[in-house]
Amino acid sequence: MKLLFGTGNINKVKEAKLILKNSKYEVEQLKIPYPELQGTLEEVAKYGAKYVYDEYMSKNEKISNENVSIIVEDSGLFIESLREFPGTYSKYVQMTLGNEGILKLLGTCKKRNAYFKTVIGYYDGKEIKTFSGTVEGTISYKMKSNGYGFAYDSIFVPKGCEKTFAEMLPAEKSDISHRKNAFMEFKRYIDSLSNE
Amino acid sequence: MKLLFGTGNINKVKEAKLILKNSKYEVEQLKIPYPELQGTLEEVAKYGAKYVYDEYMSKNEKISNENVSIIVEDSGLFIESLREFPGTYSKYVQMTLGNEGILKLLGTCKKRNAYFKTVIGYYDGKEIKTFSGTVEGTISYKMKSNGYGFAYDSIFVPKGCEKTFAEMLPAEKSDISHRKNAFMEFKRYIDSLSNE
Repeated sequence: MKLLFGTGNINKVKEAKLILKNSKYEVEQLKIPYPELQGTLEEVAKYGAKYVYDEYMSKNEKISNENVSIIVEDSGLFIESLREFPGTYSKYVQMTLGNEGILKLLGTCKKRNAYFKTVIGYYDGKEIKTFSGTVEGTISYKMKSNGYGFAYDSIFVPKGCEKTFAEMLPAEKSDISHRKNAFMEFKRYIDSLSNE
Repeated sequence: MKLLFGTGNINKVKEAKLILKNSKYEVEQLKIPYPELQGTLEEVAKYGAKYVYDEYMSKNEKISNENVSIIVEDSGLFIESLREFPGTYSKYVQMTLGNEGILKLLGTCKKRNAYFKTVIGYYDGKEIKTFSGTVEGTISYKMKSNGYGFAYDSIFVPKGCEKTFAEMLPAEKSDISHRKNAFMEFKRYIDSLSNE
């Protein structure tokens, strides 16, 4: 069975392939851009999966829809004392305010807990489903980086760690990341289907 | 001709009726919610107008599409030194960070220019068009209100004024507002059609 991952980012596809390598799915990248809604990560991911599926099917009419499923993913950083800002709009906020803006908003506030969340939207032509993974942590008082990671990684310290995501080697981060957790939840679902 | 205004806010409909009262259009409220995209105000408004039109037509198959046009509108506050933040996401940012968050981000920064912008999305079954209106001004150093207005009104001082929008009587604000300017631009368009 084909699992088409609607994303422009090949690294995300590689990560998915690795996690799903012993499943019945063959993961492939599909570069069909889709409109991102305003709303929750779940709403964005559901709409995206359905949109990409419909676009793909309309261009590949000869393919049996029995054999194709689509996934897309969306992630965000949720900071509790900022009412979960920037959430779904993390990408936009990173481009405008950046990490400096986030640190300014928190100031010396001691309540700095936050979490990263990934939601995978899945559509097989019949059912739309979502799978999520999170990683909890805190926002540091200043940016700290060893040159790894991107975006909010230099201000996010995962629970139980002393380093920010941007101070960890990529493999170290991947191993505890929200995206990994979401793909693990997805894997449990598809494994349960195979056992039916 | 019917001009259906897709909005939950009856006050916006009243304002549109007033501005368009001598045109060939009869403005009515249409309460069909539509998905709001992430993107520019123009993208949000175009998508919304098309979506509401299609939904309305699918539920009213007997109505000739010659007689119906749809408008929706979307507005935002754009602050230059914050890279136009909060822009399209003004509603979300108001709910999370609020005016306090904006004032904290600007701090004592002297470059405080900003503008409000409204974009109207229009679809008549053939053409999608947008019409925009802005009002320029500055962000005040603290909130000032006489109990009027809402959202960012208490931190926005229109150019040439000494009061914030929230210190003005509603009629005074409406007379110079971005929404009015957008509807005036729309009126010029439909008037030009009548003269063809």
